[in-house]
Amino acid sequence: MPLQYNEYYNEQTGLTIGLKKLLFSEQSDYQLVEVYETDTWGNLMTIDGMVMLSERDEFVYHEMLAHTAMFTHPKPERVLIIGGGDGGTAREVLKHASVTHVDMVEIDKTVVDASKLHFPGVGDFDNPNLNVSYEDGIAFVKNVKIPYDVIIIDGSDPVGPAEGLFEKDFYQFCINALSDDGVLTAQTESPWVESYYPSMKKVFYALDDLFPISKMYLSFIPLYPAGMWSMACASKTVDPLSDEVIERINSSEKKFSSLKYYNAEIHTGSFALPNFVKDIIKR
Amino acid sequence: MPLQYNEYYNEQTGLTIGLKKLLFSEQSDYQLVEVYETDTWGNLMTIDGMVMLSERDEFVYHEMLAHTAMFTHPKPERVLIIGGGDGGTAREVLKHASVTHVDMVEIDKTVVDASKLHFPGVGDFDNPNLNVSYEDGIAFVKNVKIPYDVIIIDGSDPVGPAEGLFEKDFYQFCINALSDDGVLTAQTESPWVESYYPSMKKVFYALDDLFPISKMYLSFIPLYPAGMWSMACASKTVDPLSDEVIERINSSEKKFSSLKYYNAEIHTGSFALPNFVKDIIKR
Repeated sequence: MPLQYNEYYNEQTGLTIGLKKLLFSEQSDYQLVEVYETDTWGNLMTIDGMVMLSERDEFVYHEMLAHTAMFTHPKPERVLIIGGGDGGTAREVLKHASVTHVDMVEIDKTVVDASKLHFPGVGDFDNPNLNVSYEDGIAFVKNVKIPYDVIIIDGSDPVGPAEGLFEKDFYQFCINALSDDGVLTAQTESPWVESYYPSMKKVFYALDDLFPISKMYLSFIPLYPAGMWSMACASKTVDPLSDEVIERINSSEKKFSSLKYYNAEIHTGSFALPNFVKDIIKR
Repeated sequence: MPLQYNEYYNEQTGLTIGLKKLLFSEQSDYQLVEVYETDTWGNLMTIDGMVMLSERDEFVYHEMLAHTAMFTHPKPERVLIIGGGDGGTAREVLKHASVTHVDMVEIDKTVVDASKLHFPGVGDFDNPNLNVSYEDGIAFVKNVKIPYDVIIIDGSDPVGPAEGLFEKDFYQFCINALSDDGVLTAQTESPWVESYYPSMKKVFYALDDLFPISKMYLSFIPLYPAGMWSMACASKTVDPLSDEVIERINSSEKKFSSLKYYNAEIHTGSFALPNFVKDIIKR
């Protein structure tokens, strides 16, 4: 019997991943953080038995969460990442030349430690523009004094410490912590598990109540439930689907040619929602 | 230990689906056709151990394969489906009012029998415009006398009887069997398994050599490897991304409001390819 990792997202349905060995296992104050060497996905991090990232597919999630916000804002200088302990979202944010300061607020230092040890290609932790702190993201956002141009909510699933990141109160703090042309993106789980964990609807309704512009978008993430993952984009002034955003992406094409997923067509195309997904967020 | 179905698409990585019981199992002249009752996906058909469809997610594949071709053609009357034994693609094709004749050529009658018995909501086999025959699709296409407006290649994976549906010779027969404004769509496997089964590249190169217009598109199919599935669209005159196609979809919105996946934005958005997918088909 081969060594395998199973994540069931739907009774007995889910992902099975072939493993070589366990590299890291630590029960932190918040959650069980584990890293496995897999047969074909590189190293894999799980939190409380749920896949967070693999070396092979992490680019999708990180590029889509970061660049959608970063290109929507006309000139993002100050960026706040809530969660994002593996460092991948910050790595993508830091590729934008306008950025002067990134605060990454991760509740669990164990996630950062595990990433530094076992995902050396994911984080850009030595970047002088990156400031990492270990504290509760909700309390941090509540007390922001200097506003951010972009806030990215890169939390884990809505069970455990990230639960509060799916609540309307939290997004009220976020809108207050954003500059006048501020943009926010958030991971909001899979439409295919919405009936079990109603995350998309909850976050979309909150953002739609609070922000002038709020839209959902999708990307293909092979190691997340059903391979279909939703994210939310909310903005105070610039529509993520406006011509100015597409022009910004196209004019930066050369600088961002090493990206493996995100491009101008993907930016636009990812906001196209299948009818059953539209139905989930219909008001 | 619960009863489970496993499909490994990548060493020990793949899908695990919770089962209730085996409903159908027949070794035909071509392949092993099985139907299981699952815990949350309704009935599930597998061929030689590979998932073909479940009642819960089949709408994605069938809507995307059928309507992308059907709306690209200005007025599809005669349609040929190669494979498609479960009947789902024909069901979607037959929703178009212009259709007068559909030939469905399935090599394996066992697939149709299993579908009629265990997927009563999938096929529309009693439709008077549908003509089902059980023969080799490649030989059939080679001998077409009256051309078709649309040809849809709805075969199984490129191991076993469907192998020839990924070859250039076959697409040469297809182009000859299409009318002057003919359109073709084909399922071309997942970009994430391309390194194991180079299907996308092979089919795209063949179509790109033969047709004036050929493009790849993607859809989210939870029970197919990695959840990311590619399809090809080739056309003699009309670009699937032209304004006339989008207008056709939008003007039919009411008639097609019961679709669960496909709509005008999805039609366009599905042709947006991530950079790593563009790289696969780059010439």
